[in-house]
Amino acid sequence: MSRNIFVEKLNQTFIEDLDIEIVERKGIGHPDSISDGIAESVSEALCKMYMDELGGVLHHNTDEVQITAGESNPVFGGGQIIKPIDILLTGRGVSEYEGHKLPLDYVAIDAAKEFLDKTVINLDVNRDTIVECKIGHGSGDLVDVFKREGAPSSNDTSFGVGYAPFSEVETIVFETETLLNSKAFKKDHPGVGEDIKVMGLREGDKITLTIGCATVSKYLANREEYIACRDVLKDIVADLAVKYTDREIEVFVNTADNDNATDESGYYLTVTGTSAEMGDDGSVGRGNRANGLITPCRPMSMEATSGKNPINHVGKIYNILSNEIANDVAKDVEGVKQINLMILSQIGKPIDQPKAASAGIILEDGYEMGKVSPQVEKIIDNWLENITDITEKVVQGKARTF
Amino acid sequence: MSRNIFVEKLNQTFIEDLDIEIVERKGIGHPDSISDGIAESVSEALCKMYMDELGGVLHHNTDEVQITAGESNPVFGGGQIIKPIDILLTGRGVSEYEGHKLPLDYVAIDAAKEFLDKTVINLDVNRDTIVECKIGHGSGDLVDVFKREGAPSSNDTSFGVGYAPFSEVETIVFETETLLNSKAFKKDHPGVGEDIKVMGLREGDKITLTIGCATVSKYLANREEYIACRDVLKDIVADLAVKYTDREIEVFVNTADNDNATDESGYYLTVTGTSAEMGDDGSVGRGNRANGLITPCRPMSMEATSGKNPINHVGKIYNILSNEIANDVAKDVEGVKQINLMILSQIGKPIDQPKAASAGIILEDGYEMGKVSPQVEKIIDNWLENITDITEKVVQGKARTF
Amino acid sequence: MSRNIFVEKLNQTFIEDLDIEIVERKGIGHPDSISDGIAESVSEALCKMYMDELGGVLHHNTDEVQITAGESNPVFGGGQIIKPIDILLTGRGVSEYEGHKLPLDYVAIDAAKEFLDKTVINLDVNRDTIVECKIGHGSGDLVDVFKREGAPSSNDTSFGVGYAPFSEVETIVFETETLLNSKAFKKDHPGVGEDIKVMGLREGDKITLTIGCATVSKYLANREEYIACRDVLKDIVADLAVKYTDREIEVFVNTADNDNATDESGYYLTVTGTSAEMGDDGSVGRGNRANGLITPCRPMSMEATSGKNPINHVGKIYNILSNEIANDVAKDVEGVKQINLMILSQIGKPIDQPKAASAGIILEDGYEMGKVSPQVEKIIDNWLENITDITEKVVQGKARTF
Amino acid sequence: MSRNIFVEKLNQTFIEDLDIEIVERKGIGHPDSISDGIAESVSEALCKMYMDELGGVLHHNTDEVQITAGESNPVFGGGQIIKPIDILLTGRGVSEYEGHKLPLDYVAIDAAKEFLDKTVINLDVNRDTIVECKIGHGSGDLVDVFKREGAPSSNDTSFGVGYAPFSEVETIVFETETLLNSKAFKKDHPGVGEDIKVMGLREGDKITLTIGCATVSKYLANREEYIACRDVLKDIVADLAVKYTDREIEVFVNTADNDNATDESGYYLTVTGTSAEMGDDGSVGRGNRANGLITPCRPMSMEATSGKNPINHVGKIYNILSNEIANDVAKDVEGVKQINLMILSQIGKPIDQPKAASAGIILEDGYEMGKVSPQVEKIIDNWLENITDITEKVVQGKARTF
Repeated sequence: MSRNIFVEKLNQTFIEDLDIEIVERKGIGHPDSISDGIAESVSEALCKMYMDELGGVLHHNTDEVQITAGESNPVFGGGQIIKPIDILLTGRGVSEYEGHKLPLDYVAIDAAKEFLDKTVINLDVNRDTIVECKIGHGSGDLVDVFKREGAPSSNDTSFGVGYAPFSEVETIVFETETLLNSKAFKKDHPGVGEDIKVMGLREGDKITLTIGCATVSKYLANREEYIACRDVLKDIVADLAVKYTDREIEVFVNTADNDNATDESGYYLTVTGTSAEMGDDGSVGRGNRANGLITPCRPMSMEATSGKNPINHVGKIYNILSNEIANDVAKDVEGVKQINLMILSQIGKPIDQPKAASAGIILEDGYEMGKVSPQVEKIIDNWLENITDITEKVVQGKARTF
Repeated sequence: MSRNIFVEKLNQTFIEDLDIEIVERKGIGHPDSISDGIAESVSEALCKMYMDELGGVLHHNTDEVQITAGESNPVFGGGQIIKPIDILLTGRGVSEYEGHKLPLDYVAIDAAKEFLDKTVINLDVNRDTIVECKIGHGSGDLVDVFKREGAPSSNDTSFGVGYAPFSEVETIVFETETLLNSKAFKKDHPGVGEDIKVMGLREGDKITLTIGCATVSKYLANREEYIACRDVLKDIVADLAVKYTDREIEVFVNTADNDNATDESGYYLTVTGTSAEMGDDGSVGRGNRANGLITPCRPMSMEATSGKNPINHVGKIYNILSNEIANDVAKDVEGVKQINLMILSQIGKPIDQPKAASAGIILEDGYEMGKVSPQVEKIIDNWLENITDITEKVVQGKARTF
Repeated sequence: MSRNIFVEKLNQTFIEDLDIEIVERKGIGHPDSISDGIAESVSEALCKMYMDELGGVLHHNTDEVQITAGESNPVFGGGQIIKPIDILLTGRGVSEYEGHKLPLDYVAIDAAKEFLDKTVINLDVNRDTIVECKIGHGSGDLVDVFKREGAPSSNDTSFGVGYAPFSEVETIVFETETLLNSKAFKKDHPGVGEDIKVMGLREGDKITLTIGCATVSKYLANREEYIACRDVLKDIVADLAVKYTDREIEVFVNTADNDNATDESGYYLTVTGTSAEMGDDGSVGRGNRANGLITPCRPMSMEATSGKNPINHVGKIYNILSNEIANDVAKDVEGVKQINLMILSQIGKPIDQPKAASAGIILEDGYEMGKVSPQVEKIIDNWLENITDITEKVVQGKARTF
Repeated sequence: MSRNIFVEKLNQTFIEDLDIEIVERKGIGHPDSISDGIAESVSEALCKMYMDELGGVLHHNTDEVQITAGESNPVFGGGQIIKPIDILLTGRGVSEYEGHKLPLDYVAIDAAKEFLDKTVINLDVNRDTIVECKIGHGSGDLVDVFKREGAPSSNDTSFGVGYAPFSEVETIVFETETLLNSKAFKKDHPGVGEDIKVMGLREGDKITLTIGCATVSKYLANREEYIACRDVLKDIVADLAVKYTDREIEVFVNTADNDNATDESGYYLTVTGTSAEMGDDGSVGRGNRANGLITPCRPMSMEATSGKNPINHVGKIYNILSNEIANDVAKDVEGVKQINLMILSQIGKPIDQPKAASAGIILEDGYEMGKVSPQVEKIIDNWLENITDITEKVVQGKARTF
């Protein structure tokens, strides 16, 4: 059965030629990203539990996490948590299978804590957070989905989107956060927290990067050290950006600071490195899309990719798949300057048979759709044929979801 | 001080000329929409409380609501709730002002329940839901923002987006849900619940509408009545659609149903009309954008518009504003076929002075930017000048946020 | 098989001859009593649900309720709730029986609210409280207990105690609260709340009654009305007391009041009539014993009687039974001046075969144990023989548990 | 001002001469005892926090803890936690003092976890439990109590009771649990959990000890090891008992076991050593009285001693004080065979001036009240004079409360 694949020429300004471009990334310590990360970690852990105990993945969706901010009292050189961060896990899973009880809650909570532990360095997970679990029990018929032959059936009418390649601003925004949250960087700059928001604006050939970055109070002994840290950050980001562009770069860091303040009140200080400790709630699916960015100038899906089951939840699978396909096309098909991709499911139909998989292509000069289209179609068709590779990748924790 | 307003010609295929277009709306009874609605209602109620008691709106953001699904046992002609829906309100507000205690939690819970009561007809709010409140206390310096002279300062570096006019599919998707959830319709068709998801796909000149619609079990005595209801729905939607388009229309309703089933298991039955009663969680900002739709073929913002304070939260204000401006431009400026709008803030700067307000215009044949641009700029500038009108509108509950 | 019944002469001063006697009753609106009442109401409702749906009572214990106080702002003539009272139901029950799902949580929450509604007149249950349910699922083997032939097996090694008759102070304390919380009284004195604590102290022939009584702010327009209400209360209690004793009576009401205060701060005002609205938490089993009193000069059991299942939970059954037996003995056996009774179970043994049922008797002058003992033994034996009458009585809501 | 001290001869059978005596102790790992222990630990930690930060103890009462049982799957030689134990801290404290924020929640949760960690050896606190904190904020006027000169004012009309010396059964019950939960014993018998309930029954000269003891599954490889452990326990307890009595001793351990079972179902196995992991909830004040025992043949107070503030909460102070006084009298006053003590407060009066402190004395043969009474009075008066020593002792964690 042939698939509903459409490849058309995209009549649209190439992303780099737009006058204005906006790109954002919420760093791994932003409350929304933490929520995404927990959701995905919990799903991964449940997949592993089901595989280990039953040899196959049972139904679950853990794509709802609510972080309720705590309270803290950061001071230069120290500070303390006043009230822990509250983390509520919801969603559903199967907790009993043919009379065999599964430690669903236990595994979920454990996975959430482990993610927090490895993600926010200065968070003492067991003392600074409270993780509650209200994950419910999945119904029997949904479970059945996983037992059928062939590709699983779509759990929903939904769609995924992707595009490639990244623009300069997208690359810079992505790489900036990646660098600032890398282990190596943190070693040299322990005062820089994980809650980093990078906002990139390109106006013609001028790129402005506005960075909001929580600092870690115990590593910054005073106002001077804070300001020095902020200045260093600025320089490092500026140096990074020029590797990816010839355009003009301007960097702002913590623009809400009030440098006239002599005490903590004027600066973005935290005890743990994330604003979740003191007022900023978070939840799943409100931040980065599956490619790691928020890009209003690009097609986006509203589906939260993190935490959904990787077997039949098209809201997850199609988003990851769309990005994979788009990247492959951009990389492998000569003449493709830009590709936008949308894949739409219909509930109950096999996931390898989407209602529509639609690619829009901007060609390099001198290329024609007649030659490019078949190659693109083939890549799409091939990925759909092997769609369970996406599942595999997710189960192994190798797919980006936020 | 002049504003950073940019108007450029949009080199992009007009929405109606795209080969593929996808549009989605989550109805007012969808768990994500309920979350949005609660978030916004709570904010409105707090605004009113602050106005009544203090004469001005204090800081708050209630844009986080976590719905944890309940359990139910719907049967043809009846059924019951097994476990209530859990609704957690988070966010923050000011609960004490100059020694005067304010009933923050009480008002918030009340507002949430009132919204539920008026939105989901067959939900017995006090018995079918449990509303908890973990809204925290805002810090003092944020409060200060509201006391300053002139336009308030942006609370964040963020952006809003809008576009106009609606495409045919957008109009149809929007109007379909509006009709099905109208009072008049519900009176005639009590078996149709509020949890209605409308997915529109246009492939060239063919529009497919896929509707997922929770039914209310007590009004459908048996399988035959259910199927009859489903069929009627299909006809009504098809009839509605042709009012807005000459394109071919195909309508699917509850495609996951299994018509071979003789009992409830094969059909989309609920006791209350929302799937939140039995397995579907919900949270704020994961569904419709501020214009009521999810549109991957259009620019979108990730910001949750619902529940944010309407005084200085640009993530809310700029989204509503962008839609207002886009609509005005589309309506009032001759020659504008389509407008996309993005407005970007910088934290700490006055909200009437965005970092960039950027409009992309597709012109009707025969028009030129030279004549159109000044009119567009003027509309944008005028709205920014009167940006607190947005605040006013929100406080009065007159702004759409989801 | 004969039962382990022991009747002995009690070598102890008759209660009325003690120099000092202390008796306390926490009224029905005291947070601990509310907890007891909710626990028992939930158990009753579950019994009813199991009977209605399955024809027999399944395992459950709902003898844990945690009331976390709210916040309020009572003012003369009005006031408001700031933060609702949080009520957590815990314990366990069976929620699924042979594939049939039972609305355990729904019924439990409903029962709790209904109890609150009928008990605390001025509490707007749905707005002033939040009832959560964390009742867990009972294990299978405990369920089996209920299916066996003959008397059920004791669920625990535990004991119940009782005594009779009430002393004068006990009667007065009990009747005082009963009167003040009677419908008739409330009609005439709407300003008197349900949270009434009566402490009786007898020193020789002087009885001091100290009453702590929450008032309902909206019915007391000012300080004068409050004080008038307090004075009336004092007179009414004094008048009541003299009906039951010839001893000297002194009554204190709200001794913590500061009559120099001109505003609310000096008086015991509440919005709803219970201190649970503003700082006093409550839990099950910390207040009145099964006979309605706290009596340090009498034998007492620590077992919470409220909320336990009435089928095999000896901690409940033996407490109620001991009071029934003691009352019957005191009423029906000539020559018995006072009886103390203790019944001890051993886990796993039939509940009609206690490890020991031990009565201590103080005789009236001129009577002998030889004649009295057989009558007492017979009453005890007869009650044990018909021990399921206690179960019946509890299921019908006719047994006092607090 | 002289105190209201009453010493009278107690006309009552000496405890050892009663025909029947019942004594119970819930071991430190029983869910009710864990609740008591947490409540007291939290109060101690708050006292310390207030002392460290402010130099004095502020108002708080943390005498409400609700343990909602988890779920587990113990198997011989192993097993796992399915769902963690839920622990809710409630009560109230002062979290802000003259603008200075205090880490109330953080300290409370930490103290609860530390107590759990040191009390239940095989509990992995951070993985097997979830500790939530809903401790509220105390009102200002109560805080004032602590600032006044002289002895603090009673916070309530309440009473405490005590007696001495322990009877043989009381001593045996107490020492049995103490031994079985001692470090040395646990080292030799790792399979014995902390959730140990000892019930002592004396019928004339026969003492029956019924012990319910959770075992730790990972240390008992099979049914045989379990039964061997149970048998050893029995022997050890029997050996211990004879040190304290010449009466006949019979010991039962885990009488609900079904030795015909070949798998775990027939035995009292747990993963962690406490039944809180799998079905038994717990709360404060429902178990042992302040002297560590439940004694229906002795006077008891219903007040939860654990978790109340040690400054002015007479429900705590008078219970501890009564036991101290009773012990001193029994030890130091020649001729005192038994003493029962009750101390009653009146709200608002200084705690060193009780409404009544009433001692009942059973004399040794050949002694007279005339000589004994003044000594008893003096001891009582002296303790009341130095009542803040009790506070001191509690703050230092040296007072038994359960």
